[in-house]
Amino acid sequence: MLIAGIVLTLKGQPPTEQLTSFVDPFIGTEGAGDVFPGASLPFGMVKLGPDCSDKSSNSGYVPGGVIHGFSHVHVSGTGGGPKYGNILVMPFTGPFQPGEIQSQPSNEQASPGYFAVDLTNYDIKAEMTVSRRVGFHRYTFGNTNERGILVDAGSMLGEHHCCGEAQQLIGSEIKVVSDTLIQGYTRVRGGWNKGGEYTVFFSAVFDTPAKSFGTWKGDTDSPEKASEYDSGEKTGAWFFFGNGSKKAIQVKVGISFISCGKALANLRQEVPGWDFDKVHQDAVQTWNKVLNTIHVEGASDDMKKVFYTAMYHAMLMPVDRTGENPKWHSDEPYYDDFYAIWDTFRATNPLLTLIQPNRERDIVRSLIDIYRYEGYMPDSRSGNQTGRTQGGSNCDMVVADAFLKGLKGIDYQTGYEAMIEDAEIPPGGNQQTDGRGGINEYIKLGYVPAEYEPKGKSPTLHTPKLYDRAGTRTVEYSANDWAIAQVAKGLGKKADYEKYRKRASNWPNLWRRQVNDSGVSGFIWPKRRDGSWVEDFSTTKAGSWGNFFYEADAWEYSFYVPQDAQALIDSCGGAETFVKRLDTFFTGPNYRVDNEPSFFTPCLYTYAGYQYKSSDRIREIIQKHYTSARDGIPGNDDSGSMSAWLVFNTVGFYPNAGQDVYLITAPHFHRAVLDLGDGKQLEVIASNLSEKNRYIQSATLNGKPLNRAWFRHSEIADGGKLRFVMGPKPSDFGKENLPPSLSDME
Amino acid sequence: MLIAGIVLTLKGQPPTEQLTSFVDPFIGTEGAGDVFPGASLPFGMVKLGPDCSDKSSNSGYVPGGVIHGFSHVHVSGTGGGPKYGNILVMPFTGPFQPGEIQSQPSNEQASPGYFAVDLTNYDIKAEMTVSRRVGFHRYTFGNTNERGILVDAGSMLGEHHCCGEAQQLIGSEIKVVSDTLIQGYTRVRGGWNKGGEYTVFFSAVFDTPAKSFGTWKGDTDSPEKASEYDSGEKTGAWFFFGNGSKKAIQVKVGISFISCGKALANLRQEVPGWDFDKVHQDAVQTWNKVLNTIHVEGASDDMKKVFYTAMYHAMLMPVDRTGENPKWHSDEPYYDDFYAIWDTFRATNPLLTLIQPNRERDIVRSLIDIYRYEGYMPDSRSGNQTGRTQGGSNCDMVVADAFLKGLKGIDYQTGYEAMIEDAEIPPGGNQQTDGRGGINEYIKLGYVPAEYEPKGKSPTLHTPKLYDRAGTRTVEYSANDWAIAQVAKGLGKKADYEKYRKRASNWPNLWRRQVNDSGVSGFIWPKRRDGSWVEDFSTTKAGSWGNFFYEADAWEYSFYVPQDAQALIDSCGGAETFVKRLDTFFTGPNYRVDNEPSFFTPCLYTYAGYQYKSSDRIREIIQKHYTSARDGIPGNDDSGSMSAWLVFNTVGFYPNAGQDVYLITAPHFHRAVLDLGDGKQLEVIASNLSEKNRYIQSATLNGKPLNRAWFRHSEIADGGKLRFVMGPKPSDFGKENLPPSLSDME
Repeated sequence: MLIAGIVLTLKGQPPTEQLTSFVDPFIGTEGAGDVFPGASLPFGMVKLGPDCSDKSSNSGYVPGGVIHGFSHVHVSGTGGGPKYGNILVMPFTGPFQPGEIQSQPSNEQASPGYFAVDLTNYDIKAEMTVSRRVGFHRYTFGNTNERGILVDAGSMLGEHHCCGEAQQLIGSEIKVVSDTLIQGYTRVRGGWNKGGEYTVFFSAVFDTPAKSFGTWKGDTDSPEKASEYDSGEKTGAWFFFGNGSKKAIQVKVGISFISCGKALANLRQEVPGWDFDKVHQDAVQTWNKVLNTIHVEGASDDMKKVFYTAMYHAMLMPVDRTGENPKWHSDEPYYDDFYAIWDTFRATNPLLTLIQPNRERDIVRSLIDIYRYEGYMPDSRSGNQTGRTQGGSNCDMVVADAFLKGLKGIDYQTGYEAMIEDAEIPPGGNQQTDGRGGINEYIKLGYVPAEYEPKGKSPTLHTPKLYDRAGTRTVEYSANDWAIAQVAKGLGKKADYEKYRKRASNWPNLWRRQVNDSGVSGFIWPKRRDGSWVEDFSTTKAGSWGNFFYEADAWEYSFYVPQDAQALIDSCGGAETFVKRLDTFFTGPNYRVDNEPSFFTPCLYTYAGYQYKSSDRIREIIQKHYTSARDGIPGNDDSGSMSAWLVFNTVGFYPNAGQDVYLITAPHFHRAVLDLGDGKQLEVIASNLSEKNRYIQSATLNGKPLNRAWFRHSEIADGGKLRFVMGPKPSDFGKENLPPSLSDME
Repeated sequence: MLIAGIVLTLKGQPPTEQLTSFVDPFIGTEGAGDVFPGASLPFGMVKLGPDCSDKSSNSGYVPGGVIHGFSHVHVSGTGGGPKYGNILVMPFTGPFQPGEIQSQPSNEQASPGYFAVDLTNYDIKAEMTVSRRVGFHRYTFGNTNERGILVDAGSMLGEHHCCGEAQQLIGSEIKVVSDTLIQGYTRVRGGWNKGGEYTVFFSAVFDTPAKSFGTWKGDTDSPEKASEYDSGEKTGAWFFFGNGSKKAIQVKVGISFISCGKALANLRQEVPGWDFDKVHQDAVQTWNKVLNTIHVEGASDDMKKVFYTAMYHAMLMPVDRTGENPKWHSDEPYYDDFYAIWDTFRATNPLLTLIQPNRERDIVRSLIDIYRYEGYMPDSRSGNQTGRTQGGSNCDMVVADAFLKGLKGIDYQTGYEAMIEDAEIPPGGNQQTDGRGGINEYIKLGYVPAEYEPKGKSPTLHTPKLYDRAGTRTVEYSANDWAIAQVAKGLGKKADYEKYRKRASNWPNLWRRQVNDSGVSGFIWPKRRDGSWVEDFSTTKAGSWGNFFYEADAWEYSFYVPQDAQALIDSCGGAETFVKRLDTFFTGPNYRVDNEPSFFTPCLYTYAGYQYKSSDRIREIIQKHYTSARDGIPGNDDSGSMSAWLVFNTVGFYPNAGQDVYLITAPHFHRAVLDLGDGKQLEVIASNLSEKNRYIQSATLNGKPLNRAWFRHSEIADGGKLRFVMGPKPSDFGKENLPPSLSDME
């Protein structure tokens, strides 16, 4: 069904290729990737795919797992308590056996905007495609048994998750409006972000009139009963269509977070007819368009598969819910499922700024609008509710990144207000949700002390423990402060610039020089309010919300000073010692590829003048950890964060997020053309590149020599040509003119 | 239509009188009362009444104002930005002229559960009655013009209010399901509590099939169009029924905060038929039942009117929304529209504890359940969202009042947890919403300092100002701490008791002895962090959220030490000086009868041994400020707070809320019988009472002499007989055995 090969050639632009053919949505569905393999548009609100086995999978999907049905709202690449899995549709053959309807899968297929599987228990081929807010199902029944389809308004993922992160049903409603229309909703709270209530409304339109129907509430099935009102229980409905014929039965399910009426309007607007293949082709074209924003040459098909699947994964989340915000009415865009900014600010947001600037503009505007109406920008958010912060207030990085890169159409004055709110206003009872927990102490002491313990019973809180991320918070708050300082400078707020620039150098307050491990000394370490160090701690102690470090250990966090690598190098004893430390780190057990705090660490060699070592590390990481196999993503994809990291690094540079600086990490492709929008292109050429010739010998930018291993966004913002000459050995490239650090600057 | 006189006599109990005949819902609709005169059950979710003039009235009603229609959700006796006014129904005669449909009123009638008015523009008699969640309309058309009825899902009150307290439409939806059924909803945010979104769903069923119909969205009217989905605009629908006949057209409107399906279920469950008079009679009986919990004898009909209307007003709010909570599913009761606890904890909640213990139990349970799911009990709440605190965390008083009076069926362990949350956990960014703003400083310094300034941009915040209620907070936190101490003691938490008992004596930290005014010295005064007093301040400076005192001045708040009147008397220079101070206060300009902080102040004479002066003051206040006229309530009724104050004081005693103590204030009736539930009665008899014989000479409780002007709840909890002998002159009654104060106790 897919159109292979070249579709269109625009004048002077690379041809629009059928790049969807290089996307395999199953990559990352095995191992720890947790990616969603079902049908979705880029940033699509409807993510239609199977919910399997015991519905404890974060994406709904379980390889080979028994299928309960296909639900319309999912997230991709996430951990913790599952969220969503709402409005489940399942075809079956009669009779209707409540609670028993499920099937073994066979012959699963997935491609952008399409998912198919044979339901062997019933001899049904299930296919699905999507528009932004509509799921389109096509069920072909293979035998002549009585054909049935159910719509379950009570189904969800993660009902039995631990740790207060289970989803809980508040209520649901179902109504058989006619023999071709079922409407209803599910209202749920909880999940990973311990969020309040969210409601998913639907209108399901069938192309074949039902011959009989029924509804259920709780354990009671009622044939011929047309509606079940919401009394806090699970409800659903089934249609029977009589005995089988070869003709498929199609169902379109409009989804809305506003109302059933809106769901129906969405359906009518986006998918007026019954042409499944047309909707599918539209989805493919939409994906092709965004995939074609990076055109690569000189890569194996396998590498292209890895690369374009990564691009695909980096564009599944956050979710565009513009027009679907039940909480306020504004003219701003609305995005949800930031899962979390802590993951995505490092690579995903900068990637969008580069190749989808209008999309990133809208995302930033939505974050600022959340601040307008709720008081803080979120670090994580899902189901219209801000969840826990992971560490710092990293929306600050996102706003600064957009500002410094000149992204237009954003109210930066209000964005700056929101950053100051993060930096100054204690979130109090919600110290785990909004802004910066422990901010008063950070301001007063210059670090979050070891005794820091957020108190309170807010339902979004974990049971408070000593240290609550005091280490992660201190280093990230320092980086966030530098983001604020730069925006302050750009907005002409000189005093603020000085203030936050100073605060950006708070991280050394937790640098304990005396700690030694594996020949390396100096680590970020827990310090008490009175200035004394905690002794009962180790360099390899990682943790989660309740601990000193979040999701990484002292080895990893002691490299997290993106705003001032030079000062970090000095603290570590100079460039040579620092490079040794990096070597020890990457060859030892403490580097974890799947861990965001270390995303930028390979680039740190470049700050010490060793660009080629950055390049080597990255090449090694990619070769070792990224493949086109189903377990080809290292760890949770984290809303596409792992994937965005790969995209940048294979193209040949990597952003220092929250700055206008890219580090050159060496291309994996002979040629890559990035579409920056408005007809602007950035061309990256690697002459002589081969597996052997992988070291940069020299570089030019727009024809002029580039004697440094970094460049500013402003240098390529209007497009340009970055040309590298590659060779078999490391050169002096990047030895001089080191990338900028805070402590170098005026 | 009302049945006059005595209905039923139970064995040994006072006869059930038709006490609704003494209720005039118009009392308090003129002047500043802001009470709602429409149809409601006790604590009823549906409050059906007219929305008038420019819809800027808090109750919807404006005396003589042009009527736009009758909407289903209202509050009573409130100030600030209006809330609700949702789902408006209006009859008219053709043609349909959008935006022009309104009428002058004539012949307004109101009684419990019933409202009627002639719409003179159209010659229509409009009548309405209610069940808990259903509004029942009966429209009798007086001429033969084409009869129409519209349902406006976009109408609301207070759209143009200032100060960030305006209501804002998020969206609405309407659907003409059949010629007798219209469904839809309105989603709104804002209003007095600056709340987030709430959604009011409805199902309107007509007894007469429409002959034609139409719908509108924004400014576009669409005849024959059956639905308007939610795109963020105002929507509505109209029905035409052809030319007139004498037969009335009836409409039942089921309301729900869950869904249209639930609204229809509510309608079918509560009002299955079309017998308007029956539904009206049921409402009257329900009111009669709750009014008959106090049976009074020996009062003029006018006094009875004042008294029973006050009882009526004290039972309009909060609103029983059990089964209608869209935010979580629990088995606990759910109440909304606490507007605010700061107003009602003083008299309304203690009144319910006494005569409607099951109702009060359910209210307390709902407050604790809000803590369970949201982290704090509310001080104010409306539209399912907690709004600003007025001063202290006065839910503590409500829980303590219930606990100390032995109210059964409440999880006091969790209630105590919620109190500790208030007392210990800084609400941070929401310092104006949850818990106790400035709690860290209160704990550290023993007072909230003058410089206290809640920072932050939370949408629920006013623009922060210096002093943010530091004075109100300090005195109320001290009183709240005593409430906690007493519960701690009862739960066997000895260390906590000692801790909070100590904190309950924090108020003198703001007592500035040197301030003099009108011969009186010593006032609560703003003090800085460093211990120095603010000089630029005055004893008569009252304010609101941004000021040192909330809604009262230093004269008033310097009497607010309900937990330790004895220490206050000492601070003021002893009993005689204190009584002079009270005299100066009550005869001067600073006492404001409509002001909750002074509700208890008349009782303070009794703590100095002058019961008769308490009695005199109260009698004077009632005679001066409470009448049966339409402006007969002094100031905002504040959700019935003014009314509950009157009920207690006319019966003859008044609670020290948050303690198990009542002060005897002298009866206004020869006999009052209070139904305490479970067949228990408290009889209050005033022998020889007359306008002249208004002083208590002696008292007995259950036949034994009562040599004190107060008693404990435990002394009357199982019922009892309180008998006073009245005389023409003050006696020694209450001179000895003064009521308990914290500083008297072990």
